[in-house]
Amino acid sequence: MITIEQLITRIEQRQPIINKADIDAEQLHQEFDSVGSLTTATHKQLSFLADPNYISSLASSQAGAVLITAEYFDQVPQTAVALVVANPYLAYAGASQLFARESLFNGIHPSAVISESAVIGEQVNIGAFCVIGDNVHIGAHSSIDAHVVVEANTAIGHNCVIKSHVVIGHDSVIGNHVRIHANASIGSEGFGFAPTRDPSTMGWERIAQLGRVVIGDHVRIGSQTCIDRGAIDDTIVGSYVVIDNLVQVGHNVRIGDGTAIAAKTGIAGSVIIGKRCIIGGDVGITGHIEIVDDVILSGMTMVTKSIKKSGSYSSGTVAMPTAEWRRAAVRFRKLGRD
Amino acid sequence: MITIEQLITRIEQRQPIINKADIDAEQLHQEFDSVGSLTTATHKQLSFLADPNYISSLASSQAGAVLITAEYFDQVPQTAVALVVANPYLAYAGASQLFARESLFNGIHPSAVISESAVIGEQVNIGAFCVIGDNVHIGAHSSIDAHVVVEANTAIGHNCVIKSHVVIGHDSVIGNHVRIHANASIGSEGFGFAPTRDPSTMGWERIAQLGRVVIGDHVRIGSQTCIDRGAIDDTIVGSYVVIDNLVQVGHNVRIGDGTAIAAKTGIAGSVIIGKRCIIGGDVGITGHIEIVDDVILSGMTMVTKSIKKSGSYSSGTVAMPTAEWRRAAVRFRKLGRD
Amino acid sequence: MITIEQLITRIEQRQPIINKADIDAEQLHQEFDSVGSLTTATHKQLSFLADPNYISSLASSQAGAVLITAEYFDQVPQTAVALVVANPYLAYAGASQLFARESLFNGIHPSAVISESAVIGEQVNIGAFCVIGDNVHIGAHSSIDAHVVVEANTAIGHNCVIKSHVVIGHDSVIGNHVRIHANASIGSEGFGFAPTRDPSTMGWERIAQLGRVVIGDHVRIGSQTCIDRGAIDDTIVGSYVVIDNLVQVGHNVRIGDGTAIAAKTGIAGSVIIGKRCIIGGDVGITGHIEIVDDVILSGMTMVTKSIKKSGSYSSGTVAMPTAEWRRAAVRFRKLGRD
Repeated sequence: MITIEQLITRIEQRQPIINKADIDAEQLHQEFDSVGSLTTATHKQLSFLADPNYISSLASSQAGAVLITAEYFDQVPQTAVALVVANPYLAYAGASQLFARESLFNGIHPSAVISESAVIGEQVNIGAFCVIGDNVHIGAHSSIDAHVVVEANTAIGHNCVIKSHVVIGHDSVIGNHVRIHANASIGSEGFGFAPTRDPSTMGWERIAQLGRVVIGDHVRIGSQTCIDRGAIDDTIVGSYVVIDNLVQVGHNVRIGDGTAIAAKTGIAGSVIIGKRCIIGGDVGITGHIEIVDDVILSGMTMVTKSIKKSGSYSSGTVAMPTAEWRRAAVRFRKLGRD
Repeated sequence: MITIEQLITRIEQRQPIINKADIDAEQLHQEFDSVGSLTTATHKQLSFLADPNYISSLASSQAGAVLITAEYFDQVPQTAVALVVANPYLAYAGASQLFARESLFNGIHPSAVISESAVIGEQVNIGAFCVIGDNVHIGAHSSIDAHVVVEANTAIGHNCVIKSHVVIGHDSVIGNHVRIHANASIGSEGFGFAPTRDPSTMGWERIAQLGRVVIGDHVRIGSQTCIDRGAIDDTIVGSYVVIDNLVQVGHNVRIGDGTAIAAKTGIAGSVIIGKRCIIGGDVGITGHIEIVDDVILSGMTMVTKSIKKSGSYSSGTVAMPTAEWRRAAVRFRKLGRD
Repeated sequence: MITIEQLITRIEQRQPIINKADIDAEQLHQEFDSVGSLTTATHKQLSFLADPNYISSLASSQAGAVLITAEYFDQVPQTAVALVVANPYLAYAGASQLFARESLFNGIHPSAVISESAVIGEQVNIGAFCVIGDNVHIGAHSSIDAHVVVEANTAIGHNCVIKSHVVIGHDSVIGNHVRIHANASIGSEGFGFAPTRDPSTMGWERIAQLGRVVIGDHVRIGSQTCIDRGAIDDTIVGSYVVIDNLVQVGHNVRIGDGTAIAAKTGIAGSVIIGKRCIIGGDVGITGHIEIVDDVILSGMTMVTKSIKKSGSYSSGTVAMPTAEWRRAAVRFRKLGRD
């Protein structure tokens, strides 16, 4: 259970509670077990009003506390504690973390296979059947769920959360406060081959990938996402980068700080992406190009050339009735023949 | 080995065997070890004629039994037992299940780590190195292969098949007769962040995802597919939904009963999809939109707005020689500038 | 550490070292621990000049040895051993393999669960928590990392490398010198259903997938890639095929020798792909079509019909400023209505 006092402490890491002086001792100790939307929250749940379109749900809300701007403060029902902030959605984000279940186990499960040369920090959790290789370092307060494989010489920072079935290849560097979700593959071998006409290899001689993956602080990596190790130099993910599920990050890619990447996007080898970019779902970025800072790519955009100017870019065509689409697609083909 | 008698029992769960009275006792006990196409099947294999285009293969087929409509009954070779049904393909589907190898282990492997508070039904199989968390319920006759992680408080129904390396997050609800294939991630944390201008977070404050994943009965989920837990409310997959490999289902998505989703499709957060939709491979559906019942989306369609009318929709352009494509793509760009 | 002598032996498996006679005994025993680009390599690293655009970096390179064509031999610095070959990039590819870390463990980890009926060849490595099923065969010198599940009756050839968390379904056939990366799913059940109007199944009766996956020699399969087992016949991947991460290969697909497939490509069921094709990232290929030998598909191409002539094909539209794109997309829609 989380008290109003704990909520306030967490929220004030980012912004002040404007009406803190008005919250009395009894309210400070009121307890909450979860969050809810204005329409569904109970008196044991915290809610918030971030979007004024939902203002009509406020008066009848059963929530025990509501995060809200000063503008709507007087519409909060008597049954709820109002917590007034400049940015209720941001306050909710911080508060939500207090209610999350963080690790599968406490302590180090006896079934884990941990190399004697591994260095494990204080209050680290390591779940069942983990395999921690030689010379691995894991920083304090990090939680490794079940079945995680960390190959030799990899360093994981402090306060990280690595969910079950993640594989982290050898010699990787993972920063602090990094979260990696189930089944992600970090530091697999990149896709590199030298073409050859030798019929005994049918055209492909493997290039062993000898670079590393280096990930900054406060990075989030989704389930089933692949970040390949570099060929010679490293694959680099900056700090505060957030990556969704099923994303492919090829070898030698560099991603700037604060960039967000939605699910199913593919970034081919040696691409350089700037800071604070927002990349929609299922975007494809061809190899060896550069995208500057502050670029927005809408979902399914195909990027075949460097983008040198910040701004919003798109491509593709949108859903239409199939019979009409057939005609349009035929006409597109003709555009190439005229 | 499966007998004709067993085949008949299984097939008649869906439709009658029209010529059952004509099958004699000796034929009823004839045994089969597998299935085959008309051209390759042996006398120990079951085959079928579903598509009249293959009628020419029937006369010379070596199959030991053939599922067939009444129309072609008299063309079945003497060496084969004919099983006459209205829908041979559907009959074959049911029959095929008798030949499938279902679970890796029988019983509960001693290496599995199972919480004392977990409730395991009768005749459940749990394979090597599984991790079953606190208060997990697993219904009777379910089979969990190796290395499956089921986090705390999750309920799995009866007669489910969960293949190796699946991770199911805490508090999930999985119905009965559900099949989940290798390496799928159910109930990972959704991709939710509150934007902030605070330079210490470079723009992203994590929103802990406190909803669940709730999956109905008779659902099929493919390998590497991700179904994220809801942010506040739940992510909901209806009954009889079939989902292929490498599909992304974002947080708070709701999918109606009987919808089929082919590989590599991505469904962004809070999308609502109706019943009996057929969604082709690699379709992209943008967040917060709604698709009504009985919509068909062809492969690679980009859906950016709600679809309010049932029917078939498509987008994109189709493969053409690269030189011609370059000209057409340039002309498309110009369409936006004129 | 790798000596020049060892490098020469490896490189000469593919092409002669033209200046071998000029390399003295002291140089032959010079040792290297890694590779580097011309600009970053140290005297303990091997480098190469494959692309004449980088010639300006050669004179000042600190590399201990350089792979180079005869044309630029006289520009190699005195501090580096020059190794003259016709194709430096191919030589580098072979040399790089000497520096790679290949297996997580040596020997067979005591925690692995290996069926008594499994046949394990000489000098096979099997890592922690692997599960090796009944009648599995693993050829000599193969390395299986941690947490790999190999179901019953599967045969894996010699000199294979299977990384952690791979699942290989029952009855699969994997050739020699095959490399499969972390979290791949080989031989999961294909996506096959018979439509039915029976409301109790909402339209889908599962077809059990009774075919196998058969993979040739020298094949490379990336992380998170899915290769489904065949429905009746087998899914077949030829020799020297290289497949990147997050690729979907549907049931009954056949891929010809030497074909390369980049990340995130999806190949629907029963597609036949020829030899030596090069398939870019995120390509989509619809089911039941055929692509002949020597076809090149650029990234994100949508292939909806058979390709009967070798050559290069493309589709899609490319990134443009979003405001312009909106107009172009609207005009594309109108093309279908006129």
